[in-house]
Amino acid sequence: MRGFFIGRFQPYHLGHHEVIKNIINEVDELIIGIGSAQESHSFENPFTAGERVLMISMALNELDIKKRVYIIPLEDIKRNSLWVAHVREMVPPFDVVYSNNPLVKRLFKEAGMEVKGTHMYNRVEYQGTEIRRKMINGDDWKRYVPKAVAEVIEAIDGINRIREIIGKDV
Amino acid sequence: MRGFFIGRFQPYHLGHHEVIKNIINEVDELIIGIGSAQESHSFENPFTAGERVLMISMALNELDIKKRVYIIPLEDIKRNSLWVAHVREMVPPFDVVYSNNPLVKRLFKEAGMEVKGTHMYNRVEYQGTEIRRKMINGDDWKRYVPKAVAEVIEAIDGINRIREIIGKDV
Amino acid sequence: MRGFFIGRFQPYHLGHHEVIKNIINEVDELIIGIGSAQESHSFENPFTAGERVLMISMALNELDIKKRVYIIPLEDIKRNSLWVAHVREMVPPFDVVYSNNPLVKRLFKEAGMEVKGTHMYNRVEYQGTEIRRKMINGDDWKRYVPKAVAEVIEAIDGINRIREIIGKDV
Amino acid sequence: MRGFFIGRFQPYHLGHHEVIKNIINEVDELIIGIGSAQESHSFENPFTAGERVLMISMALNELDIKKRVYIIPLEDIKRNSLWVAHVREMVPPFDVVYSNNPLVKRLFKEAGMEVKGTHMYNRVEYQGTEIRRKMINGDDWKRYVPKAVAEVIEAIDGINRIREIIGKDV
Amino acid sequence: MRGFFIGRFQPYHLGHHEVIKNIINEVDELIIGIGSAQESHSFENPFTAGERVLMISMALNELDIKKRVYIIPLEDIKRNSLWVAHVREMVPPFDVVYSNNPLVKRLFKEAGMEVKGTHMYNRVEYQGTEIRRKMINGDDWKRYVPKAVAEVIEAIDGINRIREIIGKDV
Amino acid sequence: MRGFFIGRFQPYHLGHHEVIKNIINEVDELIIGIGSAQESHSFENPFTAGERVLMISMALNELDIKKRVYIIPLEDIKRNSLWVAHVREMVPPFDVVYSNNPLVKRLFKEAGMEVKGTHMYNRVEYQGTEIRRKMINGDDWKRYVPKAVAEVIEAIDGINRIREIIGKDV
Repeated sequence: MRGFFIGRFQPYHLGHHEVIKNIINEVDELIIGIGSAQESHSFENPFTAGERVLMISMALNELDIKKRVYIIPLEDIKRNSLWVAHVREMVPPFDVVYSNNPLVKRLFKEAGMEVKGTHMYNRVEYQGTEIRRKMINGDDWKRYVPKAVAEVIEAIDGINRIREIIGKDV
Repeated sequence: MRGFFIGRFQPYHLGHHEVIKNIINEVDELIIGIGSAQESHSFENPFTAGERVLMISMALNELDIKKRVYIIPLEDIKRNSLWVAHVREMVPPFDVVYSNNPLVKRLFKEAGMEVKGTHMYNRVEYQGTEIRRKMINGDDWKRYVPKAVAEVIEAIDGINRIREIIGKDV
Repeated sequence: MRGFFIGRFQPYHLGHHEVIKNIINEVDELIIGIGSAQESHSFENPFTAGERVLMISMALNELDIKKRVYIIPLEDIKRNSLWVAHVREMVPPFDVVYSNNPLVKRLFKEAGMEVKGTHMYNRVEYQGTEIRRKMINGDDWKRYVPKAVAEVIEAIDGINRIREIIGKDV
Repeated sequence: MRGFFIGRFQPYHLGHHEVIKNIINEVDELIIGIGSAQESHSFENPFTAGERVLMISMALNELDIKKRVYIIPLEDIKRNSLWVAHVREMVPPFDVVYSNNPLVKRLFKEAGMEVKGTHMYNRVEYQGTEIRRKMINGDDWKRYVPKAVAEVIEAIDGINRIREIIGKDV
Repeated sequence: MRGFFIGRFQPYHLGHHEVIKNIINEVDELIIGIGSAQESHSFENPFTAGERVLMISMALNELDIKKRVYIIPLEDIKRNSLWVAHVREMVPPFDVVYSNNPLVKRLFKEAGMEVKGTHMYNRVEYQGTEIRRKMINGDDWKRYVPKAVAEVIEAIDGINRIREIIGKDV
Repeated sequence: MRGFFIGRFQPYHLGHHEVIKNIINEVDELIIGIGSAQESHSFENPFTAGERVLMISMALNELDIKKRVYIIPLEDIKRNSLWVAHVREMVPPFDVVYSNNPLVKRLFKEAGMEVKGTHMYNRVEYQGTEIRRKMINGDDWKRYVPKAVAEVIEAIDGINRIREIIGKDV
């Protein structure tokens, strides 16, 4: 059984990590879709799809997962009625969708697919918006992401990027 | 050192397989870009990006590669001057491009990147066009693709698809 | 003389119905353009273009209009300077535009066309936003739409859709 | 039961007319999709979507059909895997597809829909390409289209348009 | 040495004019990019790219600049990672970018280009938003733009346009 | 009176140069539109829009024209019915179109604009396709373009580009 999980992963954090650890036990193979793949260099979406592929790949490496994982960037299609067909075109066939996003759930259900919720892990602290805010303010953001993700962000000069694009003096 | 190799993989065949076996020895990690990802259900591009991800992933499994391989679908951007930036946005950072395609080589060279040619493996027989023609004509196409690819194509009813879309009675 | 009237019709309600009853007396044929045709499954635009075609068609049936009415979905072009040309390309030739939308009026006037205002019918109650809010809150929304429209919305499970996409427990 | 039939209708001719006369007997309501709606002013697609809506609407008027017919322009989506979802978004729900186009048939079949072939009516003479060629050469094209269609084409100066865009002296 | 300066110029005002007077002394040739070229007829972007080309060209005429100036409309690409490649494709090669926009500066810096800030000229008064508001309210907006720009705006009926599109009675 | 002239200018050659010399005498100001601006790095369209802006600008410099000339890149819109609106949006208002292209002429005529033909200058030799072929074959291409254009092409390594993208050994 192949499962599908989608997020924007700006950045990939420990909340995502916990969710994926749980899902991986329920499936034979897992597809991780990276949403809004064409977005980058904004406060909402500072990192490119390629950088996010790298973050997730490095972080999963730490988990030493024995099952196959596909990490696929997905450009926005901006037409809700076509979105499920777009996802299905870009990733290998899958049997079940894991999501807590109301729109994602509804769209897959209208397409006749099985949808399961995910157990959120400390949703207050593990939130992309909150972590990006800490990056800008110089707070400790590293404790919210896997170690490998912090290394990727530093290697690409990510903190300076996010500060500069919002016009904050570095 | 991370390398980048791109193809349409319609389908992924033994010619691609040999090229990748060679490249993998020269790099630490390999990114395989799937070009024209948005195309499918035509003679030129019968298989979806997701199906091609599956073919490549299954075929590489047979090789038991110890190095990390990223398989990334790339939608066409249809503007040559933006194409390199588009690839770089969608895949992890890379150091060298492997390609024999004249346009790909020129575009990456104008962007200041290192480009290496690949050793083509029996180019007459191992060609997507030729293999698709055999699929339509009922000739033996399986000997030109890795075993795992043939299994994927059969599982998705690929031969009937390619015959029907060109209007050939099944 | 052929007239053109445009709206998003999310949903088609009795306010639209009254306007169209008035316009129909002034023209020989009427074109009804369905704006933002590519949008659906959001609070602003819950229904697909096809569903809106159906609503309008069924509702007009109740009126027993003897004149020809064309119902045409219009995808957004997102470039104001091209919008009039886009509308003219997609619908039969017309002589007069009926609208109260300031931008629509200005764009058609700059293109040299005749534009007439419409008599709004109880604008406070007959508003798409307000009716969608009632759908979500479980208030009586049916009294604001033609009977045939309520039937379409129920047949497509429209109330559950609008509630789920905004994350409201059903 | 609602049926769906699609064509480019460049122009709508007596071959289409015969097919629709047959289909209309089998369905309760008919949706006619106008493909490549965004194309016009070329030899392949001389007429705008709006002009084609007009042709079909006027021609059907001659038939005095008692059943509801929806005439819907459909812009190309240029991604085969999304095309069925695009059609379904833009037109009312339907139960059966009528087509002889191999790609259309395969795409709807992969989506799990019922597809029926149509009885072609003298396919040699009733072909858009052939009729457009006659328009250019000054041959008698009017005998191949319904009378109402000929009137529309003359009202929009269609013969001069098709001659001029291919650079033929008028 | 060729410099590049970009703005939306809605409208081109004396603040822009002062900046350009300064830059022109530092470069051999100047490229002025008109951003969001595809936007018009909105409060944010009332004027078309062509109208903005005209404003800038007429205003520069007053300065009697001896150096070559290129005025190039640039449509939005809506993908930050591709934007620098898009600009470079559309304008002649340049050596230095003049900008105070944080995102523009970061994007060009990541592409390895030299970026210089500009000296803002009375930023409180010389702001597009503020000037457009004055146009709507009937305040004296002409003192904030070069004389030639005021003439262009009047020739194209610009004040009525901006008032009408926001629904303000003229 | 302002005139509009459009071409792809791949490259700008002496045939274009002669046409423009003639037009410039008939108008007060001239707009030169660069068509297919988004195309580059192909045999049909080897040079970017920016490079073509540079070629034309440098070549006109040789003519010492006293009238204002606007050089504006125009991306393809790929919808003929919208193309005139697109051109009008991107360039300053104009009174007359100069063209020998049948489609361009028809589209502007349908929009109610005045269209004039141009006197072709030795059409056999002065043709983009022919000049590009000479570039590839190592024939003398420089005699067909203004001296300034040859300098631009050499400065951007244009001959190697066109040879490499078609896969010709340099």
